[in-house]
Amino acid sequence: MTENEITKQLHWEEAILSALKEDIPWEDVSANAVVQTPCRGRAELLCKQNGVIAGLPVFARVFTLLDKQAEIVFHVKEGDEVKKGMLLAEVFGDIRAILSGERTALNFLQRMSGIATYTRATADLLKGTKTKLLDTRKTSPNLRVFEKYAVTVGGGNNHRFNLSDGVLLKDNHIGAAGGVRQAIEAARAYAPFVRKIEIEVETLGQLKEALSAGADIVMLDNMDDETLKQAVVLAKGKAETEVSGNVTKENIARLTSLGVDYISSGAITHSAPVLDVSLKNLRPL
Amino acid sequence: MTENEITKQLHWEEAILSALKEDIPWEDVSANAVVQTPCRGRAELLCKQNGVIAGLPVFARVFTLLDKQAEIVFHVKEGDEVKKGMLLAEVFGDIRAILSGERTALNFLQRMSGIATYTRATADLLKGTKTKLLDTRKTSPNLRVFEKYAVTVGGGNNHRFNLSDGVLLKDNHIGAAGGVRQAIEAARAYAPFVRKIEIEVETLGQLKEALSAGADIVMLDNMDDETLKQAVVLAKGKAETEVSGNVTKENIARLTSLGVDYISSGAITHSAPVLDVSLKNLRPL
Amino acid sequence: MTENEITKQLHWEEAILSALKEDIPWEDVSANAVVQTPCRGRAELLCKQNGVIAGLPVFARVFTLLDKQAEIVFHVKEGDEVKKGMLLAEVFGDIRAILSGERTALNFLQRMSGIATYTRATADLLKGTKTKLLDTRKTSPNLRVFEKYAVTVGGGNNHRFNLSDGVLLKDNHIGAAGGVRQAIEAARAYAPFVRKIEIEVETLGQLKEALSAGADIVMLDNMDDETLKQAVVLAKGKAETEVSGNVTKENIARLTSLGVDYISSGAITHSAPVLDVSLKNLRPL
Amino acid sequence: MTENEITKQLHWEEAILSALKEDIPWEDVSANAVVQTPCRGRAELLCKQNGVIAGLPVFARVFTLLDKQAEIVFHVKEGDEVKKGMLLAEVFGDIRAILSGERTALNFLQRMSGIATYTRATADLLKGTKTKLLDTRKTSPNLRVFEKYAVTVGGGNNHRFNLSDGVLLKDNHIGAAGGVRQAIEAARAYAPFVRKIEIEVETLGQLKEALSAGADIVMLDNMDDETLKQAVVLAKGKAETEVSGNVTKENIARLTSLGVDYISSGAITHSAPVLDVSLKNLRPL
Amino acid sequence: MTENEITKQLHWEEAILSALKEDIPWEDVSANAVVQTPCRGRAELLCKQNGVIAGLPVFARVFTLLDKQAEIVFHVKEGDEVKKGMLLAEVFGDIRAILSGERTALNFLQRMSGIATYTRATADLLKGTKTKLLDTRKTSPNLRVFEKYAVTVGGGNNHRFNLSDGVLLKDNHIGAAGGVRQAIEAARAYAPFVRKIEIEVETLGQLKEALSAGADIVMLDNMDDETLKQAVVLAKGKAETEVSGNVTKENIARLTSLGVDYISSGAITHSAPVLDVSLKNLRPL
Amino acid sequence: MTENEITKQLHWEEAILSALKEDIPWEDVSANAVVQTPCRGRAELLCKQNGVIAGLPVFARVFTLLDKQAEIVFHVKEGDEVKKGMLLAEVFGDIRAILSGERTALNFLQRMSGIATYTRATADLLKGTKTKLLDTRKTSPNLRVFEKYAVTVGGGNNHRFNLSDGVLLKDNHIGAAGGVRQAIEAARAYAPFVRKIEIEVETLGQLKEALSAGADIVMLDNMDDETLKQAVVLAKGKAETEVSGNVTKENIARLTSLGVDYISSGAITHSAPVLDVSLKNLRPL
Repeated sequence: MTENEITKQLHWEEAILSALKEDIPWEDVSANAVVQTPCRGRAELLCKQNGVIAGLPVFARVFTLLDKQAEIVFHVKEGDEVKKGMLLAEVFGDIRAILSGERTALNFLQRMSGIATYTRATADLLKGTKTKLLDTRKTSPNLRVFEKYAVTVGGGNNHRFNLSDGVLLKDNHIGAAGGVRQAIEAARAYAPFVRKIEIEVETLGQLKEALSAGADIVMLDNMDDETLKQAVVLAKGKAETEVSGNVTKENIARLTSLGVDYISSGAITHSAPVLDVSLKNLRPL
Repeated sequence: MTENEITKQLHWEEAILSALKEDIPWEDVSANAVVQTPCRGRAELLCKQNGVIAGLPVFARVFTLLDKQAEIVFHVKEGDEVKKGMLLAEVFGDIRAILSGERTALNFLQRMSGIATYTRATADLLKGTKTKLLDTRKTSPNLRVFEKYAVTVGGGNNHRFNLSDGVLLKDNHIGAAGGVRQAIEAARAYAPFVRKIEIEVETLGQLKEALSAGADIVMLDNMDDETLKQAVVLAKGKAETEVSGNVTKENIARLTSLGVDYISSGAITHSAPVLDVSLKNLRPL
Repeated sequence: MTENEITKQLHWEEAILSALKEDIPWEDVSANAVVQTPCRGRAELLCKQNGVIAGLPVFARVFTLLDKQAEIVFHVKEGDEVKKGMLLAEVFGDIRAILSGERTALNFLQRMSGIATYTRATADLLKGTKTKLLDTRKTSPNLRVFEKYAVTVGGGNNHRFNLSDGVLLKDNHIGAAGGVRQAIEAARAYAPFVRKIEIEVETLGQLKEALSAGADIVMLDNMDDETLKQAVVLAKGKAETEVSGNVTKENIARLTSLGVDYISSGAITHSAPVLDVSLKNLRPL
Repeated sequence: MTENEITKQLHWEEAILSALKEDIPWEDVSANAVVQTPCRGRAELLCKQNGVIAGLPVFARVFTLLDKQAEIVFHVKEGDEVKKGMLLAEVFGDIRAILSGERTALNFLQRMSGIATYTRATADLLKGTKTKLLDTRKTSPNLRVFEKYAVTVGGGNNHRFNLSDGVLLKDNHIGAAGGVRQAIEAARAYAPFVRKIEIEVETLGQLKEALSAGADIVMLDNMDDETLKQAVVLAKGKAETEVSGNVTKENIARLTSLGVDYISSGAITHSAPVLDVSLKNLRPL
Repeated sequence: MTENEITKQLHWEEAILSALKEDIPWEDVSANAVVQTPCRGRAELLCKQNGVIAGLPVFARVFTLLDKQAEIVFHVKEGDEVKKGMLLAEVFGDIRAILSGERTALNFLQRMSGIATYTRATADLLKGTKTKLLDTRKTSPNLRVFEKYAVTVGGGNNHRFNLSDGVLLKDNHIGAAGGVRQAIEAARAYAPFVRKIEIEVETLGQLKEALSAGADIVMLDNMDDETLKQAVVLAKGKAETEVSGNVTKENIARLTSLGVDYISSGAITHSAPVLDVSLKNLRPL
Repeated sequence: MTENEITKQLHWEEAILSALKEDIPWEDVSANAVVQTPCRGRAELLCKQNGVIAGLPVFARVFTLLDKQAEIVFHVKEGDEVKKGMLLAEVFGDIRAILSGERTALNFLQRMSGIATYTRATADLLKGTKTKLLDTRKTSPNLRVFEKYAVTVGGGNNHRFNLSDGVLLKDNHIGAAGGVRQAIEAARAYAPFVRKIEIEVETLGQLKEALSAGADIVMLDNMDDETLKQAVVLAKGKAETEVSGNVTKENIARLTSLGVDYISSGAITHSAPVLDVSLKNLRPL
């Protein structure tokens, strides 16, 4: 697992700076009141809950944006399992930069680690099967780039990023097009050819039509277990299969033995609780 | 409960437009493939889980940004308790605008309603007491304006918005200043006089020093129940009292009878699960 | 051919406004000198060269951004073949808005129509074959959304939009991965599953390896005619085929009978001359 | 010829960063798939067509924005004539930065060099005369700063940059003002006095009126050769003369012996084909 | 005097919106506390000091940005002389929009009117002479578009807007170029030909060199009255003349009879006191 | 007095860059004409008027944004009293960066120093009393962050920054709420509890009602001296007192002996004349 920051930071940078301005529209009056001259210090990033850590480069960037001389020494790496009580990192820099950046840095890290933790736990339930865990577009507005990245750190896989880079035809699209076949043909004619075409089907009849029309991926929606099994058999060798619909860590069990290619879950991004970490023991050097 | 949108929309507008661009960096290829000419339609916003609804004006704005002629007819109002199965609203507009805005609109509404729902449930546990529920700055980066608003819709109260508009002196500030009294005096000298000064104290000794130095608000941190009781008595008439620290819906009970003025909880923003709502039954008109 | 403006205008809007500011960083001193009070007028958009028109909604938006009451009456529609001397549209609005927006509106329209014209002429050479014409990422910086759209208006097809929404493994990627198969496997493991995987091959040996590793699309690069023919036979039923490399209207002939699925051309965006149109006969009403 | 980057980079920087985000809205999936750890490499910028090189500092900045440690060693300098086969530069940096920045860097360089090449060829036809070649405002929207700069690298001269920094009264302005003299007087009264006043005239009568009213520059429009000659004589010592109207490299010959001060050409920016250069031989170091 | 808003609003709009966000980073808590439901009201813009009014369209735009239904009825027009006690305008709109926009609207109007007032008073001292009053670039950062406009409303004239749209060679430029003639020649070779060339001279010797080298405008700097008189005679018919240097309303008298073309004053923008106006008598309708 | 730049620069940076682009929308043609190759130089920042200096870090940042190697050596520090003729600083850097940044750097420095100077002079009149000088929101649009900072450098105190971070109930709010008590109660119920509540009162009756309703601060408006005295007595120990209303350096005397806590003055920001400083003696090194 690497961070591959080179092109990601194009988008991280602006969001991190904007988050700092959100938290500090003027100045940090508390920090600036008690520390009025440059003073280098050190603080500790402590883990207060077991989980998977994600967002370390984002955490670090908050501080270096405030203080170019800040340095963050990590004792774990992105994607590591962390335990309550562990020292995750040391932050060195101007004490005011540490105080002023603390909350923003933690807000990113806690949320991203929360998603990685929930994703890892869910993905682990699929171990030993051929099925992979996917995310959805049910992410926090304007934070998708962070949250989908956290999913991959947790061991999940990204579905399409947005409405422009993947075709997914749902019941409403099928209705508007006049049928499964028509929707697929319209998409093939309209979308760039490098897009795979995915369609949501609710019955075996729809599935057969989709396969015959050349869908690349079929999303099996609202099917009972027996129908799902037949669907997987029908699609085999013809299209990839995805199962979706309110999948959580708690209810994924019934789906793991079906042999589908993918299970997608909105919960891994929209309902993962944050991972508790905190910045402590700030001391002047 | 009103929305008071006039000044809030200054900040909502940009974030909503940016979220639309995040989800549609190019065009919505699926919708545009199957619907290539203007076609007015209607869809239903359905409630799939009991809770408190928040974010209706944001939900509506997503669609009117895509289609100026779009109209949203609400059957509930901001802050209402909603039940599974209720028809919350009808969306009228170009079918492509409805398809393309759906996910962004729901991402805002689900998150904001989730926070309002969790907040309402927690605040209800304080009913009949003098204690009020506060939020924190543990919000999603760049979404604080939405999340703190959702807290008020849910019946919670906003603590400071950011590091510029409130003074809160924590252990690190006290350490840097050289003591409780010095920190308070530094803050009073530095911060604009319209700021109340709040300080975090961990012992009765610190509390007495804070009160004697004229703190406006004392945050009682990490105290056992007996100490908390004494602290409340000591502070009475001298400063407002706030209790903080990993407060959740589940563990708030032990704090409700203490007679503190405020209890703050990060969980109401950072760990509230989303409220499940969906947009269904899109039909041409 | 429709414009499907609903989601496209999310991106057009900002670029058009920015272009107006580029041309008018202060005010239009010439127009404002000679017309100092509101005065409604009418001007004619005339065609001065045969071609294909593209960008009409962009042309119109320039004027309505300057004058909300401006109206543009079109006598042709997007994608129409236009002839020298035709009246393409009438612009009604404040005379100053017409004067001040003229150059910006024409700069968009001329470039987009130039691309559509060149694309149409090239695509016409593929008529009667199964081969489709593709664009590339060789577009003007920050104008891709307009130029790739103009390609579709001209009858071409869009290849991937950017480096995030399509996988294309070139010689450098293959070298870095250690071979064709390794590159394809790395991409399959890393990229979201909704991406097709395309790889550039220069020999029949590489082609075979790519097909065996499951490439979705093979780009046949730098092959002589005989090798190309064999390559098409080998790939048949296994992967889509694309031919690329300095393809222009003038030299495309040798490729049309090969039976490849796609031919891509950078020239249609980067070297299309503009279509000459002009705004004339401005008169007060 | 120097680049004088100090104030130009104020505007280049934002456009370059924006172009990178246009091409990489998420991450570069191809590069990141095959290279997942830092790896320094070297690539060669090769010339594939004779011409004039322009945009080298822009080309370099693309890579240093992605990788601060990137270094570009140039073997030619801005404005040099380059030959097919020449090694123009070596790029050193993280292999992923080279792969991810390649297309954006080349898109700038090819377009700017194309303009410089076309301009140089055209300007050379004016050698030995007193006449100078001018550009127009017919530039790509939002790229004018790059394209007008490329014109100067090619040996052309910049006309006004925009509608705010130069006065040019055309037929429509004259009509609105009620005559040539009135237009000039309105402009002199309204525009900042540091602006020269240029007016377009179509007859010798208009020309005389313009000269008598004190125009600084007269644009001779649509005049036959004989009239042009008389116009130049009339204007001599009273105003600078400019000839305009569909001037290209191919048709400029008839204008070179007239003795006008300036000939302006839109073609040098809007219809210059790109110069073919490419980035090759990427190797790890 | 007209406002010619069509192209100016391109730049006003963004600054006004930004100023509103500066004053309301969250919401207007005072207004929203006391008025929680829509309520249309009326307020009066009263003049509290004699002067010249400037900025009415900006004043109005503040309110319509907050409330699309707001209407402002003006009883004076841009550039009018206003008297203490006059009712300048009535503002109709949502009471919260009036309360929330008041300060921002007044901050623009007071500053712009202050500049117009000071400019008018100064320009009046030049009445009956051929000399015109000019502004400088000594404006508030990021507010130049408003302040230079206010100068024209007050009856002053704009010098160049910025460093790109006018050439002014000062002592430092002359030093760098190696002399007056060299500086002028360098500028003529480098700058777009539509730029007039102005040069600052301190002695009659420099003046003669400047005139002989073809300067369009000479700025006479630091000359005593006698030298100034000779300079004006020397420059007559050869170049326009400008006198500069700490010119205020109080000290301009000694310069008015010299017969120079222009006198420039930084004081009219950087030291004009605001004009006192206020918004009163807000009442519900 | 320290600058505490760490969080302030989050907001300074963008405004400084924007001011540079305002002054240089294209390039600095004068500087670039006479200096076309890198050339390091030195210039002197000279004081031309007695006063208080403020804005030194902003002044310096202008140059380092244009030239990373620029260095500014200060001979005074922020808040120092400076005398006519003093050498305040030396600027070292590329001569073109010095020429191009000069005006922008001085525009910031002169304005900020003007405010600090006027504030210091006014605050000095309060020496020996318990009364402190406050600023208001009557600042230049989009420059508040600089101007309120300059007030503190001059020895003044900041009132609230904006409409979101302080509650101030004026006559219009009281009218809308239905009375003094109702307004205070509405604000207490609505505003975050960390906000102090300030209310404007015009009579002793209103004052008593405000005190009884628990106002934290009372603004005594339009009261004659005798009433003011009684008001101060009444408020003693119950609320802080502020006097406002057209307070200037010239008329503050009558208020200094009243014993109020605060006097606020709009004049210190909106009517302070600039401090005259200039950049001279630019020489190559």
